[in-house]
Amino acid sequence: MKKLIIASTSTVHESSYLAYILSDLNKFFDNEDEIIFIPFASPGGISHDDYTKIAQNGFAQIGKKVAGLHTYQDPVEALRSAKAVFTGGGNTFLLVSQLYKHSIMPILRERIFSGMKYFGTSAGANITGLTMQTTNDMPIIYPPSFKTLGAVPFNINPHYLDPVEGSKHMGETRQTRIKEFHEINTQPVVGLREGSWLEVNGEQIVLRGNLPARIFEQGKEPYEMNSGNTLTL
Amino acid sequence: MKKLIIASTSTVHESSYLAYILSDLNKFFDNEDEIIFIPFASPGGISHDDYTKIAQNGFAQIGKKVAGLHTYQDPVEALRSAKAVFTGGGNTFLLVSQLYKHSIMPILRERIFSGMKYFGTSAGANITGLTMQTTNDMPIIYPPSFKTLGAVPFNINPHYLDPVEGSKHMGETRQTRIKEFHEINTQPVVGLREGSWLEVNGEQIVLRGNLPARIFEQGKEPYEMNSGNTLTL
Repeated sequence: MKKLIIASTSTVHESSYLAYILSDLNKFFDNEDEIIFIPFASPGGISHDDYTKIAQNGFAQIGKKVAGLHTYQDPVEALRSAKAVFTGGGNTFLLVSQLYKHSIMPILRERIFSGMKYFGTSAGANITGLTMQTTNDMPIIYPPSFKTLGAVPFNINPHYLDPVEGSKHMGETRQTRIKEFHEINTQPVVGLREGSWLEVNGEQIVLRGNLPARIFEQGKEPYEMNSGNTLTL
Repeated sequence: MKKLIIASTSTVHESSYLAYILSDLNKFFDNEDEIIFIPFASPGGISHDDYTKIAQNGFAQIGKKVAGLHTYQDPVEALRSAKAVFTGGGNTFLLVSQLYKHSIMPILRERIFSGMKYFGTSAGANITGLTMQTTNDMPIIYPPSFKTLGAVPFNINPHYLDPVEGSKHMGETRQTRIKEFHEINTQPVVGLREGSWLEVNGEQIVLRGNLPARIFEQGKEPYEMNSGNTLTL
């Protein structure tokens, strides 16, 4: 049975890394002492070692060990026997390129579908969707495909942002961008505001956190969904 | 000799379509009565016909005729004999996909390099750079390549946006995104604020409009460049 936590962000405003979700992570990873961390999204160009240290410090607060996937000689083998995986945020194009380059996408998908626990934030959340095409990131590298894990039957837009009132900027709002996505793509999109996450138990997907999510379905007006509700997309 | 106007946006806040730049366009297209419009970026999913009408109404104010490239049976032939081209904004991934699909990229590049006048806004400005990789748009479609026209020896970031003071959003600022681009790419990036444009005459490139541009070079601190100055990237 699939077990995932798909979180909009690692960090909410004026809080420390993972603080808002640590007690839920403690329950989620109840029987897992060691988590493999995928650092490949490299936010701000941070090294894999330095990024892994941040994840280690975060999870140390709930007594979990974290090992960087880049430290294994054979990352595919490491994932084959992993008990739990956490993928951090950064640049989604870079993350997806690296996952394909190291042949990680298929084994990660296989393990998630057979019940290995998976936690992802931001880019690491985005890749649980059908495709990475509702990322907010810059295309800094050309990935071999936009197809991602498909652990949920829709796309994720992390860091979902409401239009800024009184803005004089003429660039598209997030909602307009997702509307453009739906001009040529059919899958629903879940806009996860910072501090929100999806809890996946098999085919049941529940919204958690303090804020509602914004749901986009092709040909419908976007609508809000409150925390605690089950998604039926 | 290359002749281009590379503009951040078609429309500035509280102004009508192209209004801020019409008198400059009138001088730029002094001897050209007819302009071919490339509507393929389809902002908000607008039809090619409807988008072309907007461009026609804009240019009618300075007595220029506009014909949509999509109305020609053979768009490559149409570009071969075009006197001037305008590419409008929308989604850059869609625009670049369409330009490759219809084999337009090579002929457009050839004609620009042999002196055909080119005006581009937003996505239409982005594609004059070396690659489309500093677009702000969502990857709603997978293009065959990120390589673009290379009419200027750098990349363009249209709608350049300064960090929003007091924002509680944890998503990356534009500057952070471009810094991530430079972790794995070497070409400079010109951040064009709305209302700014580059005037290209052969190898001379001058910044125009009311605002400074923000210049990003790999391994350097970003810096501001005032309007009226010549770029030496």
